[in-house]
Amino acid sequence: MSLVVTGTIGIDSIETPTGKVESVMGGSCSYFAAAASHLCPVRIVGAVGGDWPEAHKEVLESFSNIDQGGLEHRADSRTFAWGGKYMENLSERETLFTELGVLEEEPPPVPDAYADSSFIFLANTHPAVQLNMLEQFPNRRLAVVDTMNLWIDTARDQLLDLFQKVDGVIVNDLEATELTGITNAISAGHAILDMGPGFVVIKKGEHGAVLVHEDGLAVIPAYPAAHEQVVDPTGAGDSFAGGMMGHVASIDQVDLPALQQGLAWGTVMASFTIESFGLEGLQRTNETMITERLEQFRCLARIG
Amino acid sequence: MSLVVTGTIGIDSIETPTGKVESVMGGSCSYFAAAASHLCPVRIVGAVGGDWPEAHKEVLESFSNIDQGGLEHRADSRTFAWGGKYMENLSERETLFTELGVLEEEPPPVPDAYADSSFIFLANTHPAVQLNMLEQFPNRRLAVVDTMNLWIDTARDQLLDLFQKVDGVIVNDLEATELTGITNAISAGHAILDMGPGFVVIKKGEHGAVLVHEDGLAVIPAYPAAHEQVVDPTGAGDSFAGGMMGHVASIDQVDLPALQQGLAWGTVMASFTIESFGLEGLQRTNETMITERLEQFRCLARIG
Repeated sequence: MSLVVTGTIGIDSIETPTGKVESVMGGSCSYFAAAASHLCPVRIVGAVGGDWPEAHKEVLESFSNIDQGGLEHRADSRTFAWGGKYMENLSERETLFTELGVLEEEPPPVPDAYADSSFIFLANTHPAVQLNMLEQFPNRRLAVVDTMNLWIDTARDQLLDLFQKVDGVIVNDLEATELTGITNAISAGHAILDMGPGFVVIKKGEHGAVLVHEDGLAVIPAYPAAHEQVVDPTGAGDSFAGGMMGHVASIDQVDLPALQQGLAWGTVMASFTIESFGLEGLQRTNETMITERLEQFRCLARIG
Repeated sequence: MSLVVTGTIGIDSIETPTGKVESVMGGSCSYFAAAASHLCPVRIVGAVGGDWPEAHKEVLESFSNIDQGGLEHRADSRTFAWGGKYMENLSERETLFTELGVLEEEPPPVPDAYADSSFIFLANTHPAVQLNMLEQFPNRRLAVVDTMNLWIDTARDQLLDLFQKVDGVIVNDLEATELTGITNAISAGHAILDMGPGFVVIKKGEHGAVLVHEDGLAVIPAYPAAHEQVVDPTGAGDSFAGGMMGHVASIDQVDLPALQQGLAWGTVMASFTIESFGLEGLQRTNETMITERLEQFRCLARIG
């Protein structure tokens, strides 16, 4: 049931209607691993530069279930950095800057000790890098890939090649439309299944998510949050993926019912992330809080 | 548990990506009553003109649980008529024409025999008319009102006066934002509660609905429909309201758990409506199909 994630570890500067933070820990790998680590042990594969703050090291260490064996420290490189500003509605954001740093270099190697990993999450990066990573996990049982509009536009063929080799795809609704030309989430999901994967999860932010699986469908609303409860949406999607993959890895099952349960765990983990800047919400939560929120969500979303 | 609806009975001409129909039976009262009548008896208060087609009379009669005692036939008037065209995405539509007809005249009287009604649904019309209707049901136990942007813009004071006197409000997400200036559905819902009602249901179309109640919250996804399964979205909102109110009337309960159950019945009834033009989907369905779809929806939307 070993779960591994490969993705970015970033230094984020974020402005939302609620406030502003500089140089907090971020990145797809970080959010995914932090969320998943509440449910099962997680291995990370990523790289940071010589400028990686000591404080971030401490944040990462505060998640005791994260195995840092695949985190490469490159003294002469710069850590990936991103700055973004959210609009008043919190759904739209503007990228203020992107400094690729280590992402422009060779991807980090996968430690030999990780080669037996069975649950693989390839967070968003160039599909050629994702494919290369994927092939380093010959014992994979469930491989899931995230992507973004940039690669859909600029590396479509490589992305479609990758889709043939993974079990699942996680995208947001805009990406699903970009991939398929279809706005309806269910229809877009079916069109993505035709591209190769056995399932696709389409995340719709405050509107929840749908799972289109070769064996059937599942739908889930978002955990209801009032505007003032949303401090920082950054990392919600990666936390959702972390919660979902963390759950299926923890129960060691990969079928539709397991993935459907995973949607709920993903929703709950994302709900903690957006309550604070950076990884704070995931740092503050614990098993009791997670179980309570899942139970509360079950009541709120019960079908009468 | 007597349920009454006051609203429009219309002659609709509709164009969607799937096809085109002329002069089919429509109107808020029709959709609401047709949906609710599968769950409990419904009384209707409305008016039609001398041009009301014989075929529409037969459609209405096909719903055996609808009591037509409050349907006024005005030989010298014209029936309300509406024409609309849906865009390819089925979420946006253009109104091609509106002929108010009987809606420009005095509202129809409420039959004496209806005065004991306990569940009241005031479908969308001018809030002054809705208020006048409301006051004719002194034994009401649950009164719920629908409205639209036109009245929010042009008759806001009267609408807010009405909100003080009803138990619940049903609006879509755009109307909720128009009412409150808030885009987040949960926050907008709380702002609407501050205007007087004990609960508000915010319908989000393909993204489901949220119920913001003075005793708590409930969220529900839409029944998942692929693009090609949606033939005509007209009347989905009124069918949703009809399913919800029909359920609470049928179990004779008005608290949060009953309304939360009602969300699911509303979702299921709306899912039948959009599968065909006009009232066809609601004509074709029956108790077995409704129960089966609700059970299927429970599986699709189960929180793991």
